[in-house]
Amino acid sequence: MTAFKKAIVLVSGGLDSTTTLAIAQALDFECYALSFDYGQRHIAELQAASLVAEKYNVKDHKIINIDLGQIGGSALTDNAIDVPKSPTAGIPVTYVPARNTIFLSYALAFAEVVGASDIFIGINAVDYSGYPDCRPEYIKAYEQLANLATKAGVEGTSFTIHTPLIALSKATIIEKGVALNVDYALTVSCYLADKKGRACGVCDSCRFRKAGFATANIADPTHYQ
Amino acid sequence: MTAFKKAIVLVSGGLDSTTTLAIAQALDFECYALSFDYGQRHIAELQAASLVAEKYNVKDHKIINIDLGQIGGSALTDNAIDVPKSPTAGIPVTYVPARNTIFLSYALAFAEVVGASDIFIGINAVDYSGYPDCRPEYIKAYEQLANLATKAGVEGTSFTIHTPLIALSKATIIEKGVALNVDYALTVSCYLADKKGRACGVCDSCRFRKAGFATANIADPTHYQ
Repeated sequence: MTAFKKAIVLVSGGLDSTTTLAIAQALDFECYALSFDYGQRHIAELQAASLVAEKYNVKDHKIINIDLGQIGGSALTDNAIDVPKSPTAGIPVTYVPARNTIFLSYALAFAEVVGASDIFIGINAVDYSGYPDCRPEYIKAYEQLANLATKAGVEGTSFTIHTPLIALSKATIIEKGVALNVDYALTVSCYLADKKGRACGVCDSCRFRKAGFATANIADPTHYQ
Repeated sequence: MTAFKKAIVLVSGGLDSTTTLAIAQALDFECYALSFDYGQRHIAELQAASLVAEKYNVKDHKIINIDLGQIGGSALTDNAIDVPKSPTAGIPVTYVPARNTIFLSYALAFAEVVGASDIFIGINAVDYSGYPDCRPEYIKAYEQLANLATKAGVEGTSFTIHTPLIALSKATIIEKGVALNVDYALTVSCYLADKKGRACGVCDSCRFRKAGFATANIADPTHYQ
């Protein structure tokens, strides 16, 4: 591993992406953080993203405004659709159409501009909510696309999309993060967080997080409402 | 072909995308137009896109604001880089990192929300400027990605990205468009168009367009500065 190899890290301000940033830094990548303001209900996550980016002293942190509200189709981007407060069958209404595809496309642009060939995204296929764009086969297809899509790819760059959490349970993610001194009190995962970033405790995201701390037998530092 | 099958059509207001919209309509698709305000220098293109969308009476026209200027890296999004006025070697500085990847990711989101499985994009691999994201192998990779990325894909939708112009010369595109009654006077292709949409006549995009009309032996209706 070359020290100071550049990487783009998608940082939402939640538990998973913060752990991912800690992992990328532990691997000696020079990290460029990328966050999105996409009309999500949990805007407190973005404030958390800024705190996290600052704490990890990233080289640059861009917050890109992407108006997914104009496209809608999800409980996270359309106020007419309620966020469920108990488990639901199938892919839940919090699924945002093509969200990770949009996120990764910006990450790819940012990577090409700064000369990075590594992108980190904290997706997870274990304790996830059934989102199709959190699966390993999706990430593989994206890497192939990235190499074909870009000038860098044509010129020989081979992009790697790192998903260090993809096969980990929430409890293992938390254990890994704690070992890397991640301060989870800074992070906000709740779909319905209030303005101060306090979590509802009952949405899908809160339930997975809560259960993760319980299983890991680590005190949950989350600020609840 | 079922009448009124829905399609997303990327409409920039230029010659190629307008021809593509005319082709999609001739194939009886119910068209949803999608344009991007990405801090491009040729903002007159967007005014043209609105005129074109209106003329073709599309079902919906969304203009998504995407701040590629924040990412930069191209003569079209960074004012510090000049648009070349004569041919250059290799992939030109007008290449916008991951642009079509970003565009298609929004098109995919829009398609999923309206229930379309068809996306039309007017890219061209013949008289193109050497952009990697205008190649057939790139489009094939994107289709594979789209099926893996989405809830619709998981549920059995197979997305098709139509590139009706990909193998055509600019002259043939123009002939096809004229046969479909496209009014090219409405369209703006110039990278350096003025506020009234008048073309410079010397940038890559103007040169390809001009030569296309000349080769097709069709009077060029472009408004030049």
